Amino acid sequence: MVDVQAVLDGSRLDLSRMLTQIENQTETGQAALIELFPHTGRAELIGITGAPGTGKSSLVNQLAFHYRNPKNGEAPKKVAVVAVDPSSPFTGGAVLGDRIRMTALSGDTGVFVRSMASRGSLGGLASATAGMVQAFDAAGYEIILIETVGAGQAEVDIARLADTTLVVEAPGLGDDIQAIKAGILEIADILVINKADRPGVETTERALRSMLQLAHPVQRVFHHHGQDLIVDSPQGGEIPMWIPPIQRTVATDASGLPELLGHIADHRAHLEASGDLKRRERSRLAAELDLRLQQALVHRWEESLSPGAYDQTLDRLLDRQLSPQEAVKALLNGSLK
Amino acid sequence: MVDVQAVLDGSRLDLSRMLTQIENQTETGQAALIELFPHTGRAELIGITGAPGTGKSSLVNQLAFHYRNPKNGEAPKKVAVVAVDPSSPFTGGAVLGDRIRMTALSGDTGVFVRSMASRGSLGGLASATAGMVQAFDAAGYEIILIETVGAGQAEVDIARLADTTLVVEAPGLGDDIQAIKAGILEIADILVINKADRPGVETTERALRSMLQLAHPVQRVFHHHGQDLIVDSPQGGEIPMWIPPIQRTVATDASGLPELLGHIADHRAHLEASGDLKRRERSRLAAELDLRLQQALVHRWEESLSPGAYDQTLDRLLDRQLSPQEAVKALLNGSLK
Repeated sequence: MVDVQAVLDGSRLDLSRMLTQIENQTETGQAALIELFPHTGRAELIGITGAPGTGKSSLVNQLAFHYRNPKNGEAPKKVAVVAVDPSSPFTGGAVLGDRIRMTALSGDTGVFVRSMASRGSLGGLASATAGMVQAFDAAGYEIILIETVGAGQAEVDIARLADTTLVVEAPGLGDDIQAIKAGILEIADILVINKADRPGVETTERALRSMLQLAHPVQRVFHHHGQDLIVDSPQGGEIPMWIPPIQRTVATDASGLPELLGHIADHRAHLEASGDLKRRERSRLAAELDLRLQQALVHRWEESLSPGAYDQTLDRLLDRQLSPQEAVKALLNGSLK
Repeated sequence: MVDVQAVLDGSRLDLSRMLTQIENQTETGQAALIELFPHTGRAELIGITGAPGTGKSSLVNQLAFHYRNPKNGEAPKKVAVVAVDPSSPFTGGAVLGDRIRMTALSGDTGVFVRSMASRGSLGGLASATAGMVQAFDAAGYEIILIETVGAGQAEVDIARLADTTLVVEAPGLGDDIQAIKAGILEIADILVINKADRPGVETTERALRSMLQLAHPVQRVFHHHGQDLIVDSPQGGEIPMWIPPIQRTVATDASGLPELLGHIADHRAHLEASGDLKRRERSRLAAELDLRLQQALVHRWEESLSPGAYDQTLDRLLDRQLSPQEAVKALLNGSLK
């Protein structure tokens, strides 16, 4: 049982119980999400992704600390961290590691950290993450940091949950790893080179710059008297296109953090001014709707299926009497009421 | 246009054209797959996966070479290589690298190599790969090597296409990368430590051994007078459980290759004796059937939807008038004929 009103009133214990229900995708969790939904849509959603070894978790901790202890005179914000590891599809344990590290934040009731390892399908993970983000949003967390590890479709799916996505790199990762990141770069709103006190930082920055140009080929950047001139914004209009900035940081001593927070705020302002914030929210909700529709359609169809029809069709497939395409036709035509 | 009979008769040019149609998931490609399907189910499907930097592509080349030039007096087998990179969801280029490396094989018409980078959804990639494997199988390729890069759900989905899955590691990869592999280990039928002439090979082997025990907790392995005794096979019966062997290789000079080929043959014999070969094929075809059914159900539902209904529902979702769950109900009840 979960007490939705207690979650809305700020009870950490009830929130924690609810998150477990949502993560396990129970009926209780689903029912709670329906009640919570009207209270969502207020939080700033920030995604942080990058390969293992980039120090991304320390960076997330620093970001959380700075939102809790702002230097610019603003009020502290409530911060939630959802750490997702889609790369470990079977093992139950949270590979993202020990949250006890977050000593600077421990005891601060304005921070809530939740780790999640993948348990089943990728679709299931993205949808559990979306549910958790909604729960934190409804519970009044103003900043939600969504941390994922790795590179690939899983990160892309989870990055779609965020308004602003940070892609974290570090000097000295192998060429192979750099190459693999080409895809993930294209989802970056801000590029971070963490561990920037290490050798090779210039090489990494140069590589990122040239990859950025590949990833955003519509932006023709001319070097003109030492300044970058951007032409051909495909949006046209008055709002210039967002060009992902590259920010160096050292998470262990927080250098570069104020600048990084500035880029995040700038990106948010850009999203609001351009209308992209509403567009991103719309496509996020559309993705959730599509997934749920798909599941519901399959479920309803399965219930209408006569017993044994599926297994018989599969047998004929194994015997090469039917192709998969013909099997689909046979199952759809024969079974639906 | 593709000429299915020419593909069945062994024309490389027609096969190549057909693979392009299948990769792009065109109607022509789909129609060809229906015609090819009765001719499938004969090839040995071998999956090879591992992180970047493990030298997995060189190993694949060596395997292909050995199947073409068998040392044990057997006849050479026709070999296809499908190299898939699911980690690059946007970039079109084949990140897996230069197939020109395969100089030892170039000019050999008994080998066909095809690279594919991910273009859209993960589901799309796995299904395009499945289609390509079917085409090679029907075209008479006896050994199909399915190479993927990375770690995560994508590899798991692609590994499900194979009868025998090799997971490739290398000494000296970071602890982070080792940790990430915990999930992928559980799909391994054979573990390969490539680049085994490098320092740290003992550490890697020890780590793999302990991770194997985590991944297969039901197998209690006792060390008894220097021999491993396996007890508690969950299958019971006369066929012992398959314990993934760990094989060291150096792909650059082919050392360990004969032993690796032996493990692959042993695993195949085990699959046949235990009935697992048929079971794996059945679950592979079931997965393909499920995916196609899902797509067909969504497609049919979309066609029955009144124009504007979806967008209106999405608007109400954005305004928090409906939760996603309520939106699904409204769309399903209001629209289906």
